[in-house]
Amino acid sequence: MTTNENKFREAALIAKEFGVELEWERRSYTEIQADSLEEIVGFGVEEVCREIGDPCFAEDAGLFIDALNGFPGPYSKFVFLTIGNRGILKLMEGVENRLAEFRSAVAFCSPGGGPVVFSASVRGKITHEPRGTGGFGFDPIFEVNGRTFAEMSTREKNLLSHRGAAIRKFLLWFKGERGQDMGE
Amino acid sequence: MTTNENKFREAALIAKEFGVELEWERRSYTEIQADSLEEIVGFGVEEVCREIGDPCFAEDAGLFIDALNGFPGPYSKFVFLTIGNRGILKLMEGVENRLAEFRSAVAFCSPGGGPVVFSASVRGKITHEPRGTGGFGFDPIFEVNGRTFAEMSTREKNLLSHRGAAIRKFLLWFKGERGQDMGE
Repeated sequence: MTTNENKFREAALIAKEFGVELEWERRSYTEIQADSLEEIVGFGVEEVCREIGDPCFAEDAGLFIDALNGFPGPYSKFVFLTIGNRGILKLMEGVENRLAEFRSAVAFCSPGGGPVVFSASVRGKITHEPRGTGGFGFDPIFEVNGRTFAEMSTREKNLLSHRGAAIRKFLLWFKGERGQDMGE
Repeated sequence: MTTNENKFREAALIAKEFGVELEWERRSYTEIQADSLEEIVGFGVEEVCREIGDPCFAEDAGLFIDALNGFPGPYSKFVFLTIGNRGILKLMEGVENRLAEFRSAVAFCSPGGGPVVFSASVRGKITHEPRGTGGFGFDPIFEVNGRTFAEMSTREKNLLSHRGAAIRKFLLWFKGERGQDMGE
């Protein structure tokens, strides 16, 4: 579940490749403050699963900038909503090391079980100005192979992105589990 | 409880004025991601109270900068540890509106009861450079009446500060409650 329509659209497109249709549980969950996305999303999905009594998964992502000691990291959404891309670019003024990574953690939980978490990341660079109109959040200032995520179509971004990779890991596992279940 | 020795020292000094001796439960608690400190600290203190089975209180504070839409707000600790005072001053370069406030929320919980929360805030300004060696965190860049919190003694800071005010509110209530309990 998520409240972010962009995220859902990206995830649904990937799930389609796996022949899985996603249902959008548009709700938020308790997000804890932690340095790792895995902890945050694991905690949240377990809570929602307990409440709704159905299997569900959630994803959390963040931008970790090397020269800023991992800022904005797990608090990317809040930082985006307050200081935005302009704030990040201001913090990076005069900073030579532009290296950064987007990280994603997907957690799945079914009733009675604990969360299973899948992570992925993608290395890139912080640009000197925003470029592109696609994507959302920090996409216009995060560049991989010369183009920002906002300069890519959702399909292209999914092939390269942290979220695409983490969701694929999860779906591969999920299809394997379900296959096993049905075989038994 | 807190893991921050500076906070404990400030709180203990105030409690002394009320004839209350504090015991330091040096532990952390689950901090949720929320826009309000009240929610964060209420959630945490309830959890710890359930675990230890004793009355306890916790405090959470944050710096909310007007021109930055409330950044760093509830995530002040993480922001301090990553981009620090230098990062905040860089974000504020060329910004005329320097107004900001420190907010504090104190939550108390006793076994079987829900959290009771007390809040306070203090308005001030973000300086153009760090000043003073006292206090901790953003104290060197937060100015009230011409002096930063880091330029004050703990006692002076407590008289003016968000934390001082919130803890006093809590202790006044606490002494009243206890008085009532004993009278009944």
